[in-house]
Amino acid sequence: MTPSDRAVLALHLEVSATPTPGNVDRNRDTASLRFSQFQAGAMGARKGLDAIEAGASIGEGFERAVTGAVTEAGTNTHFGALLLLAPLVAATTEDEISETTINRVTTATSVDDAVAFYRAFDAAPVAVPEPPQGWDALDVRRGSDAVPAVRERDLTLRDVLAKSASRDLNANEWTSGFPRTFRTADRIAQDSGSLEQRAARAHLAQLAAEPDTLIQTRHGEDVAAAVRERAAALHESEASVDAISAFAEDLVEREINPGTTADILAAGLYVALLRGVKP
Amino acid sequence: MTPSDRAVLALHLEVSATPTPGNVDRNRDTASLRFSQFQAGAMGARKGLDAIEAGASIGEGFERAVTGAVTEAGTNTHFGALLLLAPLVAATTEDEISETTINRVTTATSVDDAVAFYRAFDAAPVAVPEPPQGWDALDVRRGSDAVPAVRERDLTLRDVLAKSASRDLNANEWTSGFPRTFRTADRIAQDSGSLEQRAARAHLAQLAAEPDTLIQTRHGEDVAAAVRERAAALHESEASVDAISAFAEDLVEREINPGTTADILAAGLYVALLRGVKP
Repeated sequence: MTPSDRAVLALHLEVSATPTPGNVDRNRDTASLRFSQFQAGAMGARKGLDAIEAGASIGEGFERAVTGAVTEAGTNTHFGALLLLAPLVAATTEDEISETTINRVTTATSVDDAVAFYRAFDAAPVAVPEPPQGWDALDVRRGSDAVPAVRERDLTLRDVLAKSASRDLNANEWTSGFPRTFRTADRIAQDSGSLEQRAARAHLAQLAAEPDTLIQTRHGEDVAAAVRERAAALHESEASVDAISAFAEDLVEREINPGTTADILAAGLYVALLRGVKP
Repeated sequence: MTPSDRAVLALHLEVSATPTPGNVDRNRDTASLRFSQFQAGAMGARKGLDAIEAGASIGEGFERAVTGAVTEAGTNTHFGALLLLAPLVAATTEDEISETTINRVTTATSVDDAVAFYRAFDAAPVAVPEPPQGWDALDVRRGSDAVPAVRERDLTLRDVLAKSASRDLNANEWTSGFPRTFRTADRIAQDSGSLEQRAARAHLAQLAAEPDTLIQTRHGEDVAAAVRERAAALHESEASVDAISAFAEDLVEREINPGTTADILAAGLYVALLRGVKP
């Protein structure tokens, strides 16, 4: 299986891991997103990931993957997951990946990659926090309108993401060697049971470890902190699937969606598959 | 989305349609097959379907798709579905397909296509009925050992499948213009509700219409007839999802798997997507 196929498979496995509280999973749709939309989005992303595998730049491949996913799903399903998978696919050589190779890829990104990243926001309705002070001209919500400012300041994609690293776990992965991704992959590889169950436990472990930044953006820090605490209590007590499922139902009911944690799970599944974990 | 991507998406949508009595679905694994194996098998099939889209012969693309699927899933998940999807992908031109174009493709198959079809049995443990009288040298269970006999008799892939058309619904599709596939696509397109539900209802309608030939092969004609009767009773009475789910649980419990009906559903989903049905 090529890196691109593996990345698409990771997206399929992520959405079917269950229970993944608050996120669409094999047993739950949410009010705004259906399982089948994730299936379609994953296939729509394939061409962009193929392009990266074939040597296209991260930015170009990412923009194409996001646009393809949105077109097929009819909504945004995979922006954050693709932001992690794009460099992971680029950093995969001879079926191996490491912190060193992923850092090499992220530090080599260009201003054109940053430009393509901004353009991707034109296609996808993504929830993002308010921009940092002095960063209004570079607010990602401006999409391609921000391109002149990106070029003027000569910012690479990694530069842009570094600016959000304290408020977005995906951006933080980019600037710190993907520690959560590798930790998630290790958890999945070392756990036992079906891949669906192992992935769900890795999701709960990440949700327990840090507040989800998509929840922070949409619902505020207090809600994100409370979700983390409940996840930690369930994770530490090795709670039953029923108890975790009840938490899942509650979050779905309240439309609280730890989407960044799901993105990290998809990235972790990609690395786990690469290291020989079997479906 | 290209024909190959659409075919892979159809495989993903097929396995998640629920309830599809006796088959793996979003809510059920079976004793021998897991949902994640179907997800991996679908991705493994992609390269072979890509090859057909790019102009490779049906036989070559089919063999590659089956081999890839078995490699990734670790078992046979998609032999029958790929036997239908391979010619459908080949017959798709400018995002359209018809009985005329599919018949053109199946009648144009060669002896080399038949040879590749036999070779695919080397990779995949497929349940098939006893060969017809006088057909021992051409028993598909011989796999590539049967190749000299195929060449000697100068049989195309359609010739080979015509021999099984009375005992295998997939082979019958090949020699009759894919009527069940198009009927399933029409049902899905004309129904309402989520695609998951519409696909499940189309599966029940096909199971109600004719005995599943994989069940016939594995469990005999009486069991296949009884399953068809129960499906017909549920289909005709527009039974509740709970009642259909109870039927699903019962078949899974008894390890009775209407796999050919699932293959037709995958093919029908491919045509439905092609005609604009949205996930």
